[in-house]
Amino acid sequence: MIEARHIEALKGITGEKGLLTGSDMAAYETGARYDKGRAAFVARPASTAETSAVVSYCVRNGIALVPQSGNTGLVSGSTPDDSGLQGILSLDRLTAPFALDLVNRSVKAGAGLRLSDLNGRLEESGLFFPIDLGADPRLGGMIATNTGGSRFLRYGDVRRNTLGLTVVLADEAGTVLDLSSDLRKNNTGIDWKQLFIGTTGAFGIITECVLNLEPAPKQSATALLVPASPEAVATLLVAMEDALGSYLSAFEGMSGNAVRAALDHVPSLRNPFQGGVVPDFVILAEISRSTSPREGEQPLDAVLEEVLAAIWEQEGAPLTDAFVGPPHEIWALRHALSEGVKHSGRLIAFDLSFRRGDIMPFLAHMKAEMPDHFEDVTICDFGHIGDGGVHFNLVVAKDDPRLADPDFEADLRAWVFTVAVEGFGGSFSAEHGIGRKNQVFYDQYTPEKIRALAAGLKTITSPGPLGTMTF
Amino acid sequence: MIEARHIEALKGITGEKGLLTGSDMAAYETGARYDKGRAAFVARPASTAETSAVVSYCVRNGIALVPQSGNTGLVSGSTPDDSGLQGILSLDRLTAPFALDLVNRSVKAGAGLRLSDLNGRLEESGLFFPIDLGADPRLGGMIATNTGGSRFLRYGDVRRNTLGLTVVLADEAGTVLDLSSDLRKNNTGIDWKQLFIGTTGAFGIITECVLNLEPAPKQSATALLVPASPEAVATLLVAMEDALGSYLSAFEGMSGNAVRAALDHVPSLRNPFQGGVVPDFVILAEISRSTSPREGEQPLDAVLEEVLAAIWEQEGAPLTDAFVGPPHEIWALRHALSEGVKHSGRLIAFDLSFRRGDIMPFLAHMKAEMPDHFEDVTICDFGHIGDGGVHFNLVVAKDDPRLADPDFEADLRAWVFTVAVEGFGGSFSAEHGIGRKNQVFYDQYTPEKIRALAAGLKTITSPGPLGTMTF
Repeated sequence: MIEARHIEALKGITGEKGLLTGSDMAAYETGARYDKGRAAFVARPASTAETSAVVSYCVRNGIALVPQSGNTGLVSGSTPDDSGLQGILSLDRLTAPFALDLVNRSVKAGAGLRLSDLNGRLEESGLFFPIDLGADPRLGGMIATNTGGSRFLRYGDVRRNTLGLTVVLADEAGTVLDLSSDLRKNNTGIDWKQLFIGTTGAFGIITECVLNLEPAPKQSATALLVPASPEAVATLLVAMEDALGSYLSAFEGMSGNAVRAALDHVPSLRNPFQGGVVPDFVILAEISRSTSPREGEQPLDAVLEEVLAAIWEQEGAPLTDAFVGPPHEIWALRHALSEGVKHSGRLIAFDLSFRRGDIMPFLAHMKAEMPDHFEDVTICDFGHIGDGGVHFNLVVAKDDPRLADPDFEADLRAWVFTVAVEGFGGSFSAEHGIGRKNQVFYDQYTPEKIRALAAGLKTITSPGPLGTMTF
Repeated sequence: MIEARHIEALKGITGEKGLLTGSDMAAYETGARYDKGRAAFVARPASTAETSAVVSYCVRNGIALVPQSGNTGLVSGSTPDDSGLQGILSLDRLTAPFALDLVNRSVKAGAGLRLSDLNGRLEESGLFFPIDLGADPRLGGMIATNTGGSRFLRYGDVRRNTLGLTVVLADEAGTVLDLSSDLRKNNTGIDWKQLFIGTTGAFGIITECVLNLEPAPKQSATALLVPASPEAVATLLVAMEDALGSYLSAFEGMSGNAVRAALDHVPSLRNPFQGGVVPDFVILAEISRSTSPREGEQPLDAVLEEVLAAIWEQEGAPLTDAFVGPPHEIWALRHALSEGVKHSGRLIAFDLSFRRGDIMPFLAHMKAEMPDHFEDVTICDFGHIGDGGVHFNLVVAKDDPRLADPDFEADLRAWVFTVAVEGFGGSFSAEHGIGRKNQVFYDQYTPEKIRALAAGLKTITSPGPLGTMTF
C-alpha cells in the first residue's frame, strides 16, 4: 500500500483530476486483452513539465511507474502487476501541442493524442499519418511499441515516420530530453530518439512527438486472391511487386479458419466467396495512388484486373481465383478477423515475423506438426505477408480442461517460439513489443552480451523503475 | 612511430597483403576533399573474424584505429590525423558475402562492396538499393554516415533501408555483435543497429549488412522549373506533392551560381536555358514509376507536363518557366554541380538541413547578409529541397589573400553555423556525419546532457580508441 503522503505530493503536482485512486483507476488497470493488475495510483500529467515532476518525485521515492498510452497493447506492457505498488503514468491528458507544418509535411503533437483524432484533424490538409491499425492507440504508445500495421509495405513503421521526440527520463531530476527535431536529414551523432522507439517505455516517457505525414491516397482498388498453393504465395507477391512496384500498398494473408471465424461471429459481413466456400488461404491485395483520377487514365480497378489477368495467364499460374471488389467490403472482412477469432474460443496469440519467403513454409510446418504436439488446437492465422508479419493465433475450445493447467499454455508458447525463432529465424515480437507477457522470451532469445549492454544503457540513461520490461 | 612488433603481429592476422605500410598507404591517407593525414599502417582484414582480431589486438595495445570505407567522405571522418600514430582499418577487402533474397527483397553484403558494384550485381533482378549519390562509396561508410542523396524524398536514407548489421566493437575481445536480421518487423527490445548508423564508426566497425531493396524505376520524366520567387519554391513543392504524391521522386534546388559554374567547367554539358540565360534559382523535378508503360496509359512526360500546366494556370502561379527534357541531360547538369563549384575557386562547403519551408528564407537571408559580413564570397548552393538538405557552398577566389589567414575560414564557418543552427533551427550536418572537420560544431551544439550520455554509451559499448569522432 502506498503511503498517503505520496498521493498528496503527487496531487500537488498534477492537481486533483490529474491523480486517480480507488475505483476511478479501473479502466487503467485492465489491459486490452490480457490480465488485470492493481495500481497504487494513476497520475495524469497534462504537460511535459508535470510529467517530469511526477517522474522525479517517484524516482526519488523509489516508486515504480508504468507508462500507459492508449492501453490497447497486447503484451501486458501498459498495465501494472498485481502488487498494488506500481503507479500508472497515463498519457491521456498530454494531447497538446498540435502544430501542423504543411510545407514540411510534419506535425508536432502531444503523445496522448489518439491516432483517429490525429488523422481526423489532418483530413482537410490532404495529409495523413500512414500507420493503419485495427486498434485506436495514442501516439506515445505507438512509438513505444513501433507499431507497423497493414500498410507497412507502402509506408513503413512508426520508426520510419518519427522525426523527433520529447522524452522524460527516469532519473532523480526527471530530465527532459528535447529530441524534438523536425528535420528529415540530421546526422549529428547518435540518433537518441531511436532508444525510445520500440522499447515499451522502459527508457523514458514520450510526451511529445514530431511525425512525418504522407499525402493521403486518393484512389484505391482491392482484390481477394486465392493462391494455387502455399508455395504460390511468394511467387504471387514477387509478380505483383514486379508489375505494380510501390502501387502495391497491402498484401495481407488470411487463413480460411480466421475468415470463417469472422463470418460466423460478425453478422454484418457478406461472404464474398463462390458458393460461400471459404478457401484455405486468401490474400488481400490493395493498390493505391495519392493522385486524383486523371482524364483518359485507366481506373485503378482495371489496372489491378489487368495485372491479375497477366499473372493468371502465366504457366503454372500462382492463382486459382481472384476478384476485384469494393475496398470497404473487403477491408471490413480483414478488420473483422481479430474480433472473429477472439469469439471462436480461448485465444492464445503470437505476433511473429519472418523473412517474407519463410511465412508460408512456417505455417505449413505448424499445420502438419500441431496435431502431434497439441491436439485440438486450431490455427487461425492472419497477417502481413508483404512485410513478413504473422498474427499466429491459436484457438482452443473454451471448455477445454487443459486450460485449467497453467503449464499447457506455457508449453504451447515455448514450442511455437522455439520453432519460429530457432527453426525459422523469425522474431517473437514483430510489432507488439515486450511486456510482462513475453518478457520470458526476451530473456531467453536475447544474447547475453546484448542483454548486458541494454542493462548498462538503462543504468546510464534512465535508472529509475519504469515500464514493465526488464533488461 | 609504431613499434615494428605491432606491424608483425597485425600481419600475422591479416597476411602480407592485408597490412600496408610506407608509400603503399598514400591513397588511404588522403581524403576525398580535405586534408591529408599520416597513418601508422593500413590493416585490410578480409573477414569479420580478421577484423575482430585486428581490433582486439589494437585495443589491447592502445593503438587508435580509424575505420575507412570508400574514403569519399567530406568531413575528415575516414582519414587519420597527422600524428602518424593512428592505424587505418580499411573495409576494402570485406566484399563478401553477397546473398540476394528475391522474395524478401533484401541482400546480405560485405561492408566493403561499392554502391555501384552492388547495383551492378542487382541489375538483372529488377531491384536496386535506392540511395542515389554523386560519389561511389562502399556500403559500410554509407551506413556509418547515414547518407541520403537525391532520391531521399522517395526512398529515404540509408537508415530506412538497413535491416541488419554485423559489427565489431572496440573492446579487448573485439566482440562481434551479430545484428544481422533480415526481418522487416522485429521489435524485441533496443534496436542496437541504430547505434552504428550515422555515428561515423566511433561505436564499432561494420563488416556486413542486410539491406532493403526496392523495385527499380521503369519510367521517369524530368523537368527544369524556374520558380517565380524564392517564396514560390515551397508553394511549388506542396502543389507538386499534392498532384503527384509519391510519383515525385526528386525535387532538387540549384542556384544559378552553381549551374553557371557547372556549365563553365564541364564542357560536355549543354546549356538548356532560353537564350543561354541561367536563372537565379532552378528546380529539378523528377517523377518516376516502378511499373512498365501500359497500353493506353499517358506517358510520364505528358503527366508531368499536364501537372505543370495546371500549376502554371493557378492565380499567382509559382512558376515563370518550366520545361520537361531528357532525364539524362538534366541529371548530368545536376551531377556536374559539385565538380563545377570545386573548379570555380576555393570551396568552403557546408552540409546543412532545415525544415523544408525554411530553406529559401535561409538562402535569402545569407544572400542579403553575406556582403556585410564577408565580402567577395560567392554562394553556390544546391541541394535537396524535398527533404530539407542544402549543400551550402561558398567560393572564394583562389588567390584571395584571406585564405592565408586560418581565422578567415573558421570565422566564416562559425557565422554560417550560428545563423543556420541558432537562427533557423537547422542541422550543421544533414548527411555527411561528424569527422575531424566538424567535431567542433558537435561540441558546440550538442547539449551537455546528450554529450554525457553519448560518452557513457561509448564507454559501455566500445571503449577503445576508434574513429575520428569524440564524445
